[in-house]
Amino acid sequence: MTANKTDNRTADKTDNKTAMTVTEQARLGKEAWNTGIPTIDQRNRVLLRTADLLLARQQELLAANQQDQEQAASEGLPLPMQDRLLLTDARINAMVKGLREVTSLPDPLGIVQKDWTLPNGLHIERVSVPLGLVGIIYEARPNVTIEASSLIFKAGNAVILRGGQAAIKSNEFLTGLFQEALREENLDPHLVQHLEDSSREGSAELMRCNDYVDVLIPRGGQGLIQRVVNESRVPVIRTGEGNCHLFVDQAADPDMALSILLNGKLQRPSVCNAIETLLVHEQIADSFLPLAAKALAGQCELRIDEAAAAILGDQYPIATETDYATEYNDYILAVKVVPDLTEAMSHILKYGTEHSETIVTEDSEAAERFLNTVDAAVVYVNASPRFTDGGEFGFGGELGISTQKLHARGPMGLEALVSYKYKVHGTGQVR
Amino acid sequence: MTANKTDNRTADKTDNKTAMTVTEQARLGKEAWNTGIPTIDQRNRVLLRTADLLLARQQELLAANQQDQEQAASEGLPLPMQDRLLLTDARINAMVKGLREVTSLPDPLGIVQKDWTLPNGLHIERVSVPLGLVGIIYEARPNVTIEASSLIFKAGNAVILRGGQAAIKSNEFLTGLFQEALREENLDPHLVQHLEDSSREGSAELMRCNDYVDVLIPRGGQGLIQRVVNESRVPVIRTGEGNCHLFVDQAADPDMALSILLNGKLQRPSVCNAIETLLVHEQIADSFLPLAAKALAGQCELRIDEAAAAILGDQYPIATETDYATEYNDYILAVKVVPDLTEAMSHILKYGTEHSETIVTEDSEAAERFLNTVDAAVVYVNASPRFTDGGEFGFGGELGISTQKLHARGPMGLEALVSYKYKVHGTGQVR
Repeated sequence: MTANKTDNRTADKTDNKTAMTVTEQARLGKEAWNTGIPTIDQRNRVLLRTADLLLARQQELLAANQQDQEQAASEGLPLPMQDRLLLTDARINAMVKGLREVTSLPDPLGIVQKDWTLPNGLHIERVSVPLGLVGIIYEARPNVTIEASSLIFKAGNAVILRGGQAAIKSNEFLTGLFQEALREENLDPHLVQHLEDSSREGSAELMRCNDYVDVLIPRGGQGLIQRVVNESRVPVIRTGEGNCHLFVDQAADPDMALSILLNGKLQRPSVCNAIETLLVHEQIADSFLPLAAKALAGQCELRIDEAAAAILGDQYPIATETDYATEYNDYILAVKVVPDLTEAMSHILKYGTEHSETIVTEDSEAAERFLNTVDAAVVYVNASPRFTDGGEFGFGGELGISTQKLHARGPMGLEALVSYKYKVHGTGQVR
Repeated sequence: MTANKTDNRTADKTDNKTAMTVTEQARLGKEAWNTGIPTIDQRNRVLLRTADLLLARQQELLAANQQDQEQAASEGLPLPMQDRLLLTDARINAMVKGLREVTSLPDPLGIVQKDWTLPNGLHIERVSVPLGLVGIIYEARPNVTIEASSLIFKAGNAVILRGGQAAIKSNEFLTGLFQEALREENLDPHLVQHLEDSSREGSAELMRCNDYVDVLIPRGGQGLIQRVVNESRVPVIRTGEGNCHLFVDQAADPDMALSILLNGKLQRPSVCNAIETLLVHEQIADSFLPLAAKALAGQCELRIDEAAAAILGDQYPIATETDYATEYNDYILAVKVVPDLTEAMSHILKYGTEHSETIVTEDSEAAERFLNTVDAAVVYVNASPRFTDGGEFGFGGELGISTQKLHARGPMGLEALVSYKYKVHGTGQVR
């Protein structure tokens, strides 16, 4: 398929002489942003109008999406990817609802985060400002097009989107609606753009556009994120890799531990905040493991270590290093018995992705040690890691879960989409 | 000289079989950090002890530095670089003073930045934590070795330093003192390391160590910073490029404008917050430019546009595009007459590096428009841009001036050297 894509791209370049280069689009996006940040009323009106247009043009959108689906089916795109590509009335309604919710969020700009006066009389204010032009590289999921661009735009940024090639018709239609709403508000439509060059070379070019693009956020699988981290010259916020652990301490309430295990593993295993490995303190393993195995039976495959096999018997495959290192995103659970909290934390340190880590325990000392020591965006005591989510945290939407330590960590809401500047008022001070 | 360096490196590799690879050092640094953050008392004692050791071993340090200097002289290192390499009693005393000042700063860790309780009873705290292992790539300036590592260590991080090859003996001696202080406190000496492999390949390897290094901060000239931005897989904080402008508005107080111009251009032209270009409103150019030219005469070279030449005469060279795009770091000033504030801001947008930008005006409306519109880390009205400095801002030290928008912007003090994590306390909540 790579060869096909290259061929298509060459053909496009020949046939369609008006297609803009990625750098040209990035330049136009940054120039549009530089002409001035829209007021909060303008931003909200654009979002509401985009929601209205989505409903008004629903049939056209579904038709564009149908074209993408037919192409995807004919190319033999795997079924889960075809499902992610699919738009339905329900999914469009969710996009409309999301847009309206983002409208109701407070403006994250112009907030004086701190201010002070120096002995020489200089008054310094640290004020929130937009990041500038924000790029998103993501997979063929048209709903992300609206989700991501609405949050980024609400925070006063320009957006440049590079969605998966399979969703190109849907994405072009969706950004077209956004641009129509921008034009109606007399704003530059280049504030929200989708890359016209959807080739792999196009995304590589976007990663080199550090003269125009201020931040790049990859959303998708590990391969996509790894590629962006390795290639990008634009500052990157790394998101979404979640090899998350549940540690059931010797002092755990077994019912609570079981409830959190079932929720974390079964409620939605495909997401990054699902549980991938169960670590059990050896003092509670004899009683807890049979409970867990029974509750998961028929719903989830177990891959267990020798110590767990000594308790559960030999009907489960033995877990390998690879199992512990894998984010399954599936109905599979790795299991390991550990002698103590220290070993549990060592295992998490070795295999974790600094996303969400959980301990279940009634021992407050063990809980605090876990919370303080484990190096992850979100650390839980006695709660499901499935709460690592901007909506659940009360951020009113999210752009992803950052698993790096620069800028934003954990669920990224509007606050993660702004920077700050220092405004200094003087009366002629010099050094 | 490049060839020489490569030869030396090959020789080193053959002679010294015990030299550790960069990746091995990074791994040891991260492992040391993972064993637990030293308490604030431990961190402060290590810093104070390093200061004491610096004084106790001053003669040995000067001898190591002497070796570096002799090598540098024999290789014909440019004189300004030889000066930066030089350690003197005064410079060592400044390092000692800096270490003691960092000790007196409050602990930036464990601060609850915000906390809230969700309707389901989950209690969420956002708490400041260290970044992890922080890498610094810098030039042959041994004082940076202590300045950078003391701030980074104070914020609970491990440090991995890659200083310019010319300062290798000095840097090894200095990190040796830091490690001695760590050992005396029973802490892992790998918390502060200098790369044993000081080759260009060594710094390239450090930029690929994203499994261990959490953040990389280049300190130095534009070439160094550009290389790190282009090559690094580790998240980078870009620092120090300062093509800074002074705009003298039509409503400026001329005496104040002149005082800020002289301070910004002459007080220390080699630094990133010095003024490089003077923009003058055409309504005030006739009166202000002759004043400015007279005051700078004999101290600073002017490169001016045609409109300024019409006022000042033809004794100055005409400024080119390159002049406006250049951060001189020298006694040279580019000058341009602009018709209004809008044109001044367009010039800054085109040539500025988002560092520090200044307007002098008594017109508060023009001032606010400038402060709100100009996209830079620090924007000034009626004050010298030379105040863009962690010490001047009251941060008690700084690691550099960030010119990017992710994480930290402007002067980076201790607060810029931490991340945060979310700690969530539950009572069994599931989704």
